[in-house]
Amino acid sequence: MRPIRKLIQLDEALRIIDSAASPVDGTERLPLVDASDRVCAEDVVSSTSVPPFSRAAMDGYAVRARDTFGASRANPVVLRVREKLYAGSVPKKVIGRGECSEIATGAMMPKGADAVVMVEDTETAGSEVTVNESLHPGKNTSKKGEDIAPRTRLVSRGELLNPSKIGALAAVGLDSVKVYRRPRVAVVTTGDEIAELGARLKPGQVYNINSYTVSAAVRANGGEARILPIAKDTMGDLERVVDECEDCDILVFSGGSSVGERDIMLDLLEHRGEVLFHGIAVKPGKPTLFGTIGSRLLFGMPGYPTSCLSNAYMLLVPTVRRMARLPEREPASVVARMSKRVVSATGRTQFLTVRLEGGLAIPAFKESGAITSMSHAEGYVIIPADVDLIENGEQVRVFLL
Amino acid sequence: MRPIRKLIQLDEALRIIDSAASPVDGTERLPLVDASDRVCAEDVVSSTSVPPFSRAAMDGYAVRARDTFGASRANPVVLRVREKLYAGSVPKKVIGRGECSEIATGAMMPKGADAVVMVEDTETAGSEVTVNESLHPGKNTSKKGEDIAPRTRLVSRGELLNPSKIGALAAVGLDSVKVYRRPRVAVVTTGDEIAELGARLKPGQVYNINSYTVSAAVRANGGEARILPIAKDTMGDLERVVDECEDCDILVFSGGSSVGERDIMLDLLEHRGEVLFHGIAVKPGKPTLFGTIGSRLLFGMPGYPTSCLSNAYMLLVPTVRRMARLPEREPASVVARMSKRVVSATGRTQFLTVRLEGGLAIPAFKESGAITSMSHAEGYVIIPADVDLIENGEQVRVFLL
Repeated sequence: MRPIRKLIQLDEALRIIDSAASPVDGTERLPLVDASDRVCAEDVVSSTSVPPFSRAAMDGYAVRARDTFGASRANPVVLRVREKLYAGSVPKKVIGRGECSEIATGAMMPKGADAVVMVEDTETAGSEVTVNESLHPGKNTSKKGEDIAPRTRLVSRGELLNPSKIGALAAVGLDSVKVYRRPRVAVVTTGDEIAELGARLKPGQVYNINSYTVSAAVRANGGEARILPIAKDTMGDLERVVDECEDCDILVFSGGSSVGERDIMLDLLEHRGEVLFHGIAVKPGKPTLFGTIGSRLLFGMPGYPTSCLSNAYMLLVPTVRRMARLPEREPASVVARMSKRVVSATGRTQFLTVRLEGGLAIPAFKESGAITSMSHAEGYVIIPADVDLIENGEQVRVFLL
Repeated sequence: MRPIRKLIQLDEALRIIDSAASPVDGTERLPLVDASDRVCAEDVVSSTSVPPFSRAAMDGYAVRARDTFGASRANPVVLRVREKLYAGSVPKKVIGRGECSEIATGAMMPKGADAVVMVEDTETAGSEVTVNESLHPGKNTSKKGEDIAPRTRLVSRGELLNPSKIGALAAVGLDSVKVYRRPRVAVVTTGDEIAELGARLKPGQVYNINSYTVSAAVRANGGEARILPIAKDTMGDLERVVDECEDCDILVFSGGSSVGERDIMLDLLEHRGEVLFHGIAVKPGKPTLFGTIGSRLLFGMPGYPTSCLSNAYMLLVPTVRRMARLPEREPASVVARMSKRVVSATGRTQFLTVRLEGGLAIPAFKESGAITSMSHAEGYVIIPADVDLIENGEQVRVFLL
């Protein structure tokens, strides 16, 4: 059996991962309807004007502003109505002196008119309308290109496409957009003792948990997770897995990174790529392996479900977000008081799961092999490596799971 | 033309919507791999034990604890190794007095043994192992059912399935889970002036923006958005749309809720269902219609893209989340200083879009018809109805778009 040689601190591990991970360069063109929450991979510049014509911004009458100059309730102007203009209709009449057309919001302004008097500021009698207000040119209209002029940049490369940016692309009629593809994450649970969900357990077997927890965390953070079949603890099987997912950006193995004789992840990585660290000063999750195989990142996570998932939160999630070009994001958190004194191993960063009850954070951690250490918790407290004690009643920040 | 009769305040509008909206009751069974971020629709109780057998929690030797009682470095105990046990293997030998088996983490404990001595606390010579430590029964083992005992509740109805809860379901071998279906939201842009993306604009036409912005907001908040073809401003066409999406929970129309003569959404809702409000004291977004058609909710949003989308954030998003049974969520926000004095219409809640630059919130609003009022903004400030002024330099909370 081989001991882990040297534990590195969490921040050092994150720095190493950060240097090895590059944002994904590949792109794909998506229908606009599927592009929200994706990262734009092109600068999109408008080739057109929005609105494509000058239009009424209010319901009322399209007039020549100068015909209304000086008009007031005491001194109204009477105009002759030429036609009715609805949104989508094309004006037939040109507005001459003393004339106007009834116009709906969004309708194209008729030639000759340069302002809209709101219906509330008029009185109508037959084909005549009395205007009680003096308007300046442009009043209650939107000019052609006022929203988007030609050559306006609508969205930039690297921007996250939120609903309003999707709207800006729609405004110029684009029905698709180029986005960065999601980082592809292969997720493999290794071990002769692991059985697939739905199968009947043989003696000595347990179900595959890690493929499901890790892939859920990957998907929630902009990655594409691919669950591979359970791999055997043999060099041949692990090499086959490595060869099978050459198109992936990240390989996440769980199991096989401890110090047991049959834990051959380390051999695999030494043989096929480069080991960048083996062993982190975190609790749980110490026996974690990281390195590269060509341009791919390989995480060797502990097999224990809570260790594997807490490592996924601490190490994998920020990596996936970075490769997906998503903004860094601190998980939602609340402040609570620790329900009891907690002693933490000095020198190791602790990921302590807690339940929340009436403003108290109650430790929920059972053991790293127990998934209920986490599934029955509402959140977790990160206890830094240089803190060895949290007092009963001390304030802590609880990151929500 | 018909005036909007009476504006109601935003909080009153939200109360009315809240009373009309019920969480969706329909369910669907999903493969576990697709169930993360969904809301569980059943209490899942374990029918089995996890782990399914007592197992080693460390690499070392499975021993009878009593054989080690009193052992120390000064007074070691020598045990005979019977066999090697890997994770997944089934012990063949029973551990008798003075005996042990080499065991890997996760492997089934052999009969007779009740503790594991860590490899670090032993010395090996041939088939003999020297134990330097006194162990209590259960030391370094996980008992059968210690993580999950039979009849343990794993996940409750109404809980959001996060990665660790998915893990708890996997732990007992479940490969699917019953979740609430997503609320189905039909999104329809109405108006003769609206053209579909990718089409060539005819004179007087503008592109369909609202279907894309609204559906993006719906999807980001747990709803299933269905974009319907653009509808004409005729009663017949609107009635056809209503009939076509009988299986939807929410209908969102945009356009046609203003006071123009051809704005017939109000007629439609009066004819087919019940109007619950028409007109909200918000800016932009005043001409908003809400009501029910049978059990379906109908939102008649203004046609202007920024009015429509700001209303979607203020009214539709909380409704979709509630119907999807998702937790209420305040959008991520930052605190900034207003870059200039802002005067707001008293009596109306204002949704003011802003850009963020060096800690300053710079108003980005152009007009409600301009999508760039929002797409070129980083966030928005909600100015309450009873606030008429924000001073230059005053602190505001900016909700991020």
